[in-house]
Amino acid sequence: MYNPRVGDRLSSLDTPSMIVDLDLMEANIQKLFASLLPTGLHIRPHLKTTKSAVLARKLVAAGAKGCCVAKVSEAEAITAAGFDDILITCEIIGAPKVQRLVELVKKHPGKIRIVVDSAVGATAINEALARAGGVDPPLAVLIDVDVGLHRTGVVDMEAALALARHLAGLKHLKLIGVQGYEGHVQHLHSWEERRRECLASMAILTGTAEGLRKEGFQIDVVTGGGTGTVEFCASVPGVTELQPGSFIFMDTDYRNAVGRFYSNSLTVMSTVVSRQGERQVTIDAGLKSLTTDSGLAECKDARYSHQNLGDEHGALSWEAGTPALEIGDRVEMIPSHIDPTINLHDFYYAHRNGVVEEIWAVDSRGKVQ
Amino acid sequence: MYNPRVGDRLSSLDTPSMIVDLDLMEANIQKLFASLLPTGLHIRPHLKTTKSAVLARKLVAAGAKGCCVAKVSEAEAITAAGFDDILITCEIIGAPKVQRLVELVKKHPGKIRIVVDSAVGATAINEALARAGGVDPPLAVLIDVDVGLHRTGVVDMEAALALARHLAGLKHLKLIGVQGYEGHVQHLHSWEERRRECLASMAILTGTAEGLRKEGFQIDVVTGGGTGTVEFCASVPGVTELQPGSFIFMDTDYRNAVGRFYSNSLTVMSTVVSRQGERQVTIDAGLKSLTTDSGLAECKDARYSHQNLGDEHGALSWEAGTPALEIGDRVEMIPSHIDPTINLHDFYYAHRNGVVEEIWAVDSRGKVQ
Repeated sequence: MYNPRVGDRLSSLDTPSMIVDLDLMEANIQKLFASLLPTGLHIRPHLKTTKSAVLARKLVAAGAKGCCVAKVSEAEAITAAGFDDILITCEIIGAPKVQRLVELVKKHPGKIRIVVDSAVGATAINEALARAGGVDPPLAVLIDVDVGLHRTGVVDMEAALALARHLAGLKHLKLIGVQGYEGHVQHLHSWEERRRECLASMAILTGTAEGLRKEGFQIDVVTGGGTGTVEFCASVPGVTELQPGSFIFMDTDYRNAVGRFYSNSLTVMSTVVSRQGERQVTIDAGLKSLTTDSGLAECKDARYSHQNLGDEHGALSWEAGTPALEIGDRVEMIPSHIDPTINLHDFYYAHRNGVVEEIWAVDSRGKVQ
Repeated sequence: MYNPRVGDRLSSLDTPSMIVDLDLMEANIQKLFASLLPTGLHIRPHLKTTKSAVLARKLVAAGAKGCCVAKVSEAEAITAAGFDDILITCEIIGAPKVQRLVELVKKHPGKIRIVVDSAVGATAINEALARAGGVDPPLAVLIDVDVGLHRTGVVDMEAALALARHLAGLKHLKLIGVQGYEGHVQHLHSWEERRRECLASMAILTGTAEGLRKEGFQIDVVTGGGTGTVEFCASVPGVTELQPGSFIFMDTDYRNAVGRFYSNSLTVMSTVVSRQGERQVTIDAGLKSLTTDSGLAECKDARYSHQNLGDEHGALSWEAGTPALEIGDRVEMIPSHIDPTINLHDFYYAHRNGVVEEIWAVDSRGKVQ
């Protein structure tokens, strides 16, 4: 039975396999915390990227204060794997999901935080908590603010105030802060444009926090930011917490936008399975191993140019003079978009110099609910 | 604990959930077999789409002779779930994968078929079988032929003959046929062009079979075809077996190419989680629930236009006069590409008129090795 173990060499792994260069990953973590911890801000990395409780613990050991997840089912998986200091960053809507949230909160009182952007959403959660006998302390809630992404969040100060007033009447929820995610800014290629747009978004967020405070609401948490913007967010007075996720592994999309301060520490190892002519081979990684929503994955060896060939295959081709790839050769592919790529795989094989040192489950793979 | 069951109404499912309209799916199966069984050809549906042993058994009940899978790990999962009449349609390269194949073949003697396109690949498998004490009967092998897709397969008659001669010297492999998959033809929008290109591909495949027979090789199986081409493949003398997969559920990409003979029987049910202005809402299905490699998923209710909003979200917008969607509303999204979309999910919820009648595991989800 195929049963890869710590101590195996990468060459003994079947492919496609998702592998992590531990030296590079640890350097990425060190760089982020070295640059941000001195600001005094809380760093709450987003596990929608990594989906792993082991990595959550590594990040906390490096200085993180809790982590984020996107979905309730993701929080279920990560808490089941032993990590429960969690902010769920997506709105929780619909009776089945609200019921799951209530059970989670009752199991981890005082540990779970959520966001809301509508009175109807908040009321449903409060009523479900009431039916379950309440929770002590009340469930901590952040008002999600649209800071320009136009995806979720209250759209202006008036809506934020109305929602805060509504929350004040809900016994089982306690407003503790605001969240604003400037997702539309993360991948702007110009540093100056990214900075300008990020500051504009953070001005909306901190302005909302101030407006709420003026009306008597206690706003302790002002949270946002991603790998492409944390440096700018951290410079804004009033921001208290940052949510970067992708820095730990990176991808070509973030590399192209943010540059090479962080290294691409995760690749998908693939095998050449067919020769197609003089200067092209076929590899065993396709759409089910490497996502294409943000462009094509790149071969780590840049002499080989990648094309997708469907669900199960890709092509690598090269110029005359480049050594030919042969059937059985292994290559490493750098994902274009790390989050949905990790979501395709069940395990990380973390190695140092080609020897597997740790194997981590992708605990919340597929947990989209 | 969230534990959906047979008999539940769809409204009690959390979202995103992958749901199947059983009436439509059964009609798709009936249509395919009604049109192809009279030809006398074997139909060996491809489980790279469905990834489910339950569905394999339903297809066999409808008249299928075995099924296909893409990868060895997929064959492991499907055989573990109780179905083992399997052709693995991708080349099997690399010592770890070959070892897995040998264990699979020893467990299911006479049931597994594979394809090869290189002497080096065939030799490695033969040697691994020899080390394992051989297998009785020998492992059935098809020569994979490039019929124009330029992905895998021997590139001409000379290469096919050389590989056949090489196989004749390998004690644990037995050549039984040829495979040629015209993947480049499946989505051509013009019926006439699709037919012409498919016939050209099948001419290469049947010509290769004839050429091998002339040199004394026994070629019993000539297999290929997909949902976009089976009707044409079936008309070609010499083709013996067809490998359609997507017809059972369809997607917008196949619908746009092939038309509406088969219905879109699978959708991803999603919930509206945020209102963004007068004519737009945000739903809880993003890149981790609906793939975008073949374009965007469509809302089943065509009045609502879909845009992706990242990993976890999408937008639906509408023209003035269309009823507004509200927070908590449910929508059904039709995937643009069914195979990688199913690969994102763990379960199918199969319903009739809104009541869950069966729940099927996606047995080989993530099995890319």
